[in-house]
Amino acid sequence: MTDNNAPAHPLDQAVALTPINTGQWQGATSPAYANMVGPFGGTTGATLLNAVLSHEELLGEPVSLTVNFAAPVADGGFEVSARPVRTNRNSQHWWVEMVQGDETVAFATAVTARRRETWASTESAFPDVPPAADLSDASKEGRPKWTRNYDMRFVDGELMKEPHPDYPSRSRVWLRDQPARALDFVSLSALCDAFFPRIYIRRPKLVPIGTVSLTTYFHANGEQLAAIGEAPVLGVASANHFGQGFFDQSAEVWSQGGELLATTHQVVYFKE
Amino acid sequence: MTDNNAPAHPLDQAVALTPINTGQWQGATSPAYANMVGPFGGTTGATLLNAVLSHEELLGEPVSLTVNFAAPVADGGFEVSARPVRTNRNSQHWWVEMVQGDETVAFATAVTARRRETWASTESAFPDVPPAADLSDASKEGRPKWTRNYDMRFVDGELMKEPHPDYPSRSRVWLRDQPARALDFVSLSALCDAFFPRIYIRRPKLVPIGTVSLTTYFHANGEQLAAIGEAPVLGVASANHFGQGFFDQSAEVWSQGGELLATTHQVVYFKE
Repeated sequence: MTDNNAPAHPLDQAVALTPINTGQWQGATSPAYANMVGPFGGTTGATLLNAVLSHEELLGEPVSLTVNFAAPVADGGFEVSARPVRTNRNSQHWWVEMVQGDETVAFATAVTARRRETWASTESAFPDVPPAADLSDASKEGRPKWTRNYDMRFVDGELMKEPHPDYPSRSRVWLRDQPARALDFVSLSALCDAFFPRIYIRRPKLVPIGTVSLTTYFHANGEQLAAIGEAPVLGVASANHFGQGFFDQSAEVWSQGGELLATTHQVVYFKE
Repeated sequence: MTDNNAPAHPLDQAVALTPINTGQWQGATSPAYANMVGPFGGTTGATLLNAVLSHEELLGEPVSLTVNFAAPVADGGFEVSARPVRTNRNSQHWWVEMVQGDETVAFATAVTARRRETWASTESAFPDVPPAADLSDASKEGRPKWTRNYDMRFVDGELMKEPHPDYPSRSRVWLRDQPARALDFVSLSALCDAFFPRIYIRRPKLVPIGTVSLTTYFHANGEQLAAIGEAPVLGVASANHFGQGFFDQSAEVWSQGGELLATTHQVVYFKE
């Protein structure tokens, strides 16, 4: 039974949208998800995905989402608009935009589709790691406020530690919304941006960074995500290349049961 | 010396755009790059990138490109429009669209930036493979026409062969435009879609497939690409997960000298 008087989960507050018109909403950044400057990019992307999922013409479930962080998002209100650029029989392509004043601060493209059972195979392997219950939540001391909204249990590759000799930019970390919240596409999309910038793992030195573009492929359907409920998921993140002011990183997100839920990639600006 | 009377390279013919207006061009699909149905997606994406690179307000060089294949592109003419959604001091975010009749058939977002020297590190390792000169070009017999525009020298993971026991969806292949053409962002972006769909490597059975969304991160600048000239580049491609009608695949593109030029990811529809 749902307690309708309970306050919404902080993530649901952060991505909440008030309809203005068909395909147009108002929202506001959430202090609970504050980053060094402006809001956590994961909630910005999840808000854009929420617009797609709230659209009356939505067909199917998310298959892919690319979020571009065009400019710093200022703390405060914003407008979001979403439109299906193309609707096919079983798939749909989306454009979504977040505007503050007259300026686009973030935008996304997404693909949704009606999925059906087919042959399946997972090529990546679920790693041999201790269960979340054997590890403890990382300290959020001195870290941006949004990190307190995640229970983060590092197997290895914690922030600002000596890098692993063989996998210097890799982190393996059990993640869960804090407070706990049942997994869905919105929370999974935000969580895909909760891997720290790999440059801080590879080279423990604080420099200004900012994700420029973030792409997530969803391998699970809504029913599978619902079945995971509030259980933690395992993230395995690493970088490919750093240079000329940008680096890219990729991550896999696994259920405890070994289902690959999502793969996610981003390119990140860094200074020096 | 350039011979101005020489016919353009087939790739340059395929991505050619005739200006109609600021940020608006006409083009046409090229028979040389025909796929099973419609044109090779690599040239569609490269045409969209070419619009960005041809735009009078362009700032910097490509850092990331996401192409969505919204619907089948019909053989024949199309219009392309590009607009900078946001221009920052050192970076720019783009929207690009390809229209046939009244319908959007493909669209892209891109980030361009002024890049400068910074600390650099490559995390992925250049694989131990024989040089291109020791291998021979794969037969294009019975394959779509676009494949004849690539010299493809497979180290392993060739199409429709017995999958590798340890890396069943992986291909390692030296690629080069055929006829030879100096590497640039346009040709690199097309080449990033020249890895065959991983499902045909993993499970040698022909089923209908179609890339839905393709993201490429460029790690090299234009000068580095120009220095590669007509030399082949090494692609290493593999899949992460197949299921419920979609799979994702990722690839690295390396220079012979061991520079990581690009990483590229795509999600692909498949039937059965």
